[in-house]
Amino acid sequence: MDNRFWRIARRPEGTDFAAALELAGENFSALAEGQIRIRNTHLSMDAGTRMWLSDREDGYQPPLPVGGPMTGLVLGEVIESRAAGFATGDLVRAFGQWADVSTVDAVMSGAILLDPTVADRRAWFGPLGMNGWTALWGIDQTGAAKPGERVLVSAAAGATGILAVQIAKLLGCEAWGIAGGAAKCAYLTDELGIVGAVDYKAADVGAQLNAAGGIDVYFDNVGGPLLDQVLTRMNHYGRIAVCGLLADYTSGTRTAPAEFDQVLMRRLRVEGFFSPDFMHEGPGLTRRLRDWTEAGALVMPYDVTQGLENTLTAYAKLFTGGNIGKVIVELDQ
Amino acid sequence: MDNRFWRIARRPEGTDFAAALELAGENFSALAEGQIRIRNTHLSMDAGTRMWLSDREDGYQPPLPVGGPMTGLVLGEVIESRAAGFATGDLVRAFGQWADVSTVDAVMSGAILLDPTVADRRAWFGPLGMNGWTALWGIDQTGAAKPGERVLVSAAAGATGILAVQIAKLLGCEAWGIAGGAAKCAYLTDELGIVGAVDYKAADVGAQLNAAGGIDVYFDNVGGPLLDQVLTRMNHYGRIAVCGLLADYTSGTRTAPAEFDQVLMRRLRVEGFFSPDFMHEGPGLTRRLRDWTEAGALVMPYDVTQGLENTLTAYAKLFTGGNIGKVIVELDQ
Repeated sequence: MDNRFWRIARRPEGTDFAAALELAGENFSALAEGQIRIRNTHLSMDAGTRMWLSDREDGYQPPLPVGGPMTGLVLGEVIESRAAGFATGDLVRAFGQWADVSTVDAVMSGAILLDPTVADRRAWFGPLGMNGWTALWGIDQTGAAKPGERVLVSAAAGATGILAVQIAKLLGCEAWGIAGGAAKCAYLTDELGIVGAVDYKAADVGAQLNAAGGIDVYFDNVGGPLLDQVLTRMNHYGRIAVCGLLADYTSGTRTAPAEFDQVLMRRLRVEGFFSPDFMHEGPGLTRRLRDWTEAGALVMPYDVTQGLENTLTAYAKLFTGGNIGKVIVELDQ
Repeated sequence: MDNRFWRIARRPEGTDFAAALELAGENFSALAEGQIRIRNTHLSMDAGTRMWLSDREDGYQPPLPVGGPMTGLVLGEVIESRAAGFATGDLVRAFGQWADVSTVDAVMSGAILLDPTVADRRAWFGPLGMNGWTALWGIDQTGAAKPGERVLVSAAAGATGILAVQIAKLLGCEAWGIAGGAAKCAYLTDELGIVGAVDYKAADVGAQLNAAGGIDVYFDNVGGPLLDQVLTRMNHYGRIAVCGLLADYTSGTRTAPAEFDQVLMRRLRVEGFFSPDFMHEGPGLTRRLRDWTEAGALVMPYDVTQGLENTLTAYAKLFTGGNIGKVIVELDQ
């Protein structure tokens, strides 16, 4: 077999990915016009891809077909190209397969050439990748955070959240994060230096949120019951930037905010956003993110798992809260 | 007794206003500095005031105290003034008491002088009043409706909704309304000439909404289960302008949208708005509304009840859907 890849054998129940995905083999067929082949050095683990594994038709991406490969962001070198602008040896990022080698249409996969001089190429998955774009867009545009405002981020130790709290701070806001457990909270306050962290696994979530004070911008990755706790603590004219609904992906329930009337009472603006919508702003976003990163003002801890065969262990961390920062699979090739 | 007024004897259960409000008498005390006395010719009946009768502390207005007078918008002539800028005989609108005569602080009550040359003074409660401002603001600013977009309005035969559908049409949108019963729906399409009406009391609400097609702007006065029906039919990047939650006031339940995840899936913007927030824009809003009204392009049917003693009958119509257009009590004085 020329290649190993993760095949979707069936739709997963909850987070039982081992029963749904299997490592399979395939032989390469000849590249079609417009395609490139990428030797993956890194796979990006992203909670949002959980939705693509379900059969809901009304999500923001069509479901991935059962029997086909699992898809996600990959990073690696081009080893063969029939696409204009891509040559063997180029470093690229694309929506490819969870595989040793990804074969993709360069345009459809959103493949982009990356500057190989960036010291740590993993940054193209973190601050210079979708997580960075999403964090900056959500704080600055959707959330419209202004200097001096109080910004709260859920899943703040996750790859997007950890950038969002730092960006809020860089933009002159008072940054607070919500994370699970004392270790993550300590990381946020002690390592990243944000003003405060709320441990959602502790008993007194409401009291911890009260201590933060009224929230101007809530960058929400989670939804679920936490959203209700925050809705009653928003300042008037506050903004809720809905980035993800992690609680829905893991619990199998659906977020139905019981405190929805606060949208009217407090004249809140609640808005969903999603990286493909601001792809065209990517170069400008990357420039700002790269400046901060190179100045050491924006950091990303990486949670690295070695080996394609261990991908599901890495993926599961996203849903059990086992990680701080960006979860990546590094391939031994 | 110098004056009759409606006293809040206790908090109402649901829509049992007769058990909660009682017609009482009082004698006048001398006016304090800054106060005016208004002989009410008209009382405005507004569903939003239902919330002031409850004891919820987190609403957008503090609850009215039990034992005190019921409050709402009133229209009438000043009969005595100790406030600068107000003289006996002036036509004014203010937040006053449901009474023969309102005694208010001119500033705190938001009292404003009205142009007495407007042919039908009731217009100051309708197209030139809060309903007009709210309808225009919600369609144009919060909803950001653009020409050619499809705009859907709930409670479209109510005082605000009936203006909102007309304003959507005047701004070049395809206007649809939701109302209860064939008579109201016929009024909307046949009298006002909007594109379509959805009868929420009919069995096939979903099919009726499907016939409208994807919605760009939902001007929502109702919340409740109808909001879920609309959430799944919004176009991507649609806006939901949350003007009221009538379903909550009448059912005693609270809107908790089960389809909330559509905010993310469709990248919707959901925003609450409320007339005091755009009071400062009032003169500009009134100018546009007055131009349309005087050109005959914006009309308001009035549902008039005679006599202060019949106020509760008028008020109840707001919650039973018994009215088309603006519900007003006209006082015999």
